[in-house]
Amino acid sequence: MGDMMKRELDQHSVIPLYHQLKEIIKENIERGDWAPGDKIPSENELRYNYHISRNTAKKAIEDLVQLGVLNRIQGKGTFVSQPKLEQPLMGFYSFSKVMKEMGMAPTDIILHMIESTATSRIANKLMIDEGDALIELKRLRCANDEPVILETSYIPEYLVRGIEQENVKNTSLYDVMESDFGIIVTKAKEVFEPVLIRDYESEYLQVKEGYPALLLERTAYERNGKPVEFCHSIVRGDRCRFYTELI
Amino acid sequence: MGDMMKRELDQHSVIPLYHQLKEIIKENIERGDWAPGDKIPSENELRYNYHISRNTAKKAIEDLVQLGVLNRIQGKGTFVSQPKLEQPLMGFYSFSKVMKEMGMAPTDIILHMIESTATSRIANKLMIDEGDALIELKRLRCANDEPVILETSYIPEYLVRGIEQENVKNTSLYDVMESDFGIIVTKAKEVFEPVLIRDYESEYLQVKEGYPALLLERTAYERNGKPVEFCHSIVRGDRCRFYTELI
Repeated sequence: MGDMMKRELDQHSVIPLYHQLKEIIKENIERGDWAPGDKIPSENELRYNYHISRNTAKKAIEDLVQLGVLNRIQGKGTFVSQPKLEQPLMGFYSFSKVMKEMGMAPTDIILHMIESTATSRIANKLMIDEGDALIELKRLRCANDEPVILETSYIPEYLVRGIEQENVKNTSLYDVMESDFGIIVTKAKEVFEPVLIRDYESEYLQVKEGYPALLLERTAYERNGKPVEFCHSIVRGDRCRFYTELI
Repeated sequence: MGDMMKRELDQHSVIPLYHQLKEIIKENIERGDWAPGDKIPSENELRYNYHISRNTAKKAIEDLVQLGVLNRIQGKGTFVSQPKLEQPLMGFYSFSKVMKEMGMAPTDIILHMIESTATSRIANKLMIDEGDALIELKRLRCANDEPVILETSYIPEYLVRGIEQENVKNTSLYDVMESDFGIIVTKAKEVFEPVLIRDYESEYLQVKEGYPALLLERTAYERNGKPVEFCHSIVRGDRCRFYTELI
């Protein structure tokens, strides 16, 4: 593999060496010289090949692990990751559908479905009163058994009175809302911003605290403009990227 | 201000105390009890009001500073931030236009405009050959003099031969491409993923290394489908959020 890494580092550039090394590794992967699952050279090999310090090699690799480009397996080495799950942010979006299109098996783990009460923030989003009853559905959405999204949906309780956890198992929540309660979601607004994975999220998502993630908040509406769901998701940045087409 | 923070922390909840405290602070802000620019209670005050450890108060505040909800001014205290700049990810998007609509003054600092050569990655995006000449324009885009986006555009050199830095000063790049070179951008694909601010970016963006950011990569096309620009942006997550409407 060493002969493929022909590009040299420019020791006099203003661009930090670890960043130059990252770019070279990324290019090797994008060009297809290194394929998903391939083992990359060790920190020591990189160090000698590029005449850099151990810290520089370490920092480049750690950055790429955080970004999900590489993954490290304890005692085995560092490997090229599978490509990120690409998710469109246009039109209506179904996690299960997108995963199936990518040839992945989508599964959900229901962490809980409970009755709770609206905080002022959620009440505001759902145009109900603070303290009103909610159904709170917390799910871990997985692709090929790997957790990628930690998602919590809040629905005014009176809209889905009597809904059972059984109903939403292996079915889309919107499908259940439509078939069992006559609620048809026709519009949604999504707001998203980059955040860091927190400790309580890291346990579920199996990724380290401080890793990049996307916070996605969706409000879904019925045709008449009434909000029927507020959904808060944390999406693993090391496993997902989003795209949109502008015309 | 103390009397507004009526909600108590639940010492027996599975939700960590610092997270509960964050939610209370966010609610105070969203409800409008604390306005942008208001000083919030000190770590010590929070500690005594909520019977929590100093570390818990510190962690809640640090998280909110990273998220851009609060900002800390050395020797003065911690304050509620101005609301994030909301940017649409639908239709065509102009940074200057969006900033003006929000009542902010957009300014650009041109960091450099140089001739460079295409790496394999950029060549691939622009459908040119590795090593082909490029014009590389690196700008720091500011709102009310605060840097928010670090943006690098790559344009095949032959398309904009003779372009001068003077041309793009205080004008949209696309406007210059259209008026001076007859290139009309009609379509773009944007890919984005959450990342962490790196040291060389942190200097320009005036935000700490490790803070959340959005990496946005855009390829812009002419009507005939030819790519005419590849653009790589780092957007401050503590100052910006994005939204889209799904129908």
